[in-house]
Amino acid sequence: MSRFSRPFALTAVSGLLIAPVSALADDQDVIDYRQHVMKTLGEQAAAIGMILEHRAPPENFAVHVQILAITAATAKKAFEPKVPGGDAKPDVWAKWADFAKRLDALAASTADLAKTAKDGGLAAAEPKVATALTCKNCHDTYRVPKQ
Amino acid sequence: MSRFSRPFALTAVSGLLIAPVSALADDQDVIDYRQHVMKTLGEQAAAIGMILEHRAPPENFAVHVQILAITAATAKKAFEPKVPGGDAKPDVWAKWADFAKRLDALAASTADLAKTAKDGGLAAAEPKVATALTCKNCHDTYRVPKQ
Repeated sequence: MSRFSRPFALTAVSGLLIAPVSALADDQDVIDYRQHVMKTLGEQAAAIGMILEHRAPPENFAVHVQILAITAATAKKAFEPKVPGGDAKPDVWAKWADFAKRLDALAASTADLAKTAKDGGLAAAEPKVATALTCKNCHDTYRVPKQ
Repeated sequence: MSRFSRPFALTAVSGLLIAPVSALADDQDVIDYRQHVMKTLGEQAAAIGMILEHRAPPENFAVHVQILAITAATAKKAFEPKVPGGDAKPDVWAKWADFAKRLDALAASTADLAKTAKDGGLAAAEPKVATALTCKNCHDTYRVPKQ
């Protein structure tokens, strides 16, 4: 099934609408893509955690939060295709309104954190980190527990 | 050893300079941190690759390139501490001038790609991707081959 085909891949030739001839996203592609997004969030959250524990360079704090915020804003798009699998519980789609609301909240809270980090640095942003990064709360509900 | 301790963790008390009491980065921290950075690059490059193969949403192309560019600009800092291990060959530090030059080139080429993608979209940026993403070339020289 085509979930991510490019609109401009549809071409009118001789009055006939021709379906895209390019490779199209299948279910495994959908899962792979959202895992690339979520793993990026995980790697960046880990880098931020290391900085807060004084185990990584603090001067990179603001940029990691920025990357996290930009990536978080792409996550909802990655989950829109209703394709259970990977680490996602079926509840992601059964309770889509709640799940989507949480992703919107994550995008907003990390964007706010990125602004605080850019303007006020680590000291200003640190108190907001635990509230902004809602990873565990959402994973507890919507991610298949790790074995 | 302290490589990433915060400068302000040094505190003068009663005329004595007290060493930082916080947790400090050890060699494994240095390796972990740079792996978080490099894995982020890998996940984002994979997402970009999927889009180019029409297997992921093309409307996210510019943002993935942006994330890649921002992350690439943090990579040199992550490799500055001379700590062999992880997937990094000792040549990273033995040939630091070359390695650093390559990371600078990656940061510049991905920043240019991000600008092209933002201004001209996927169609404008696509021809530049192979030249901008120098991952394999550098990995062939400086990364321990995967088993």
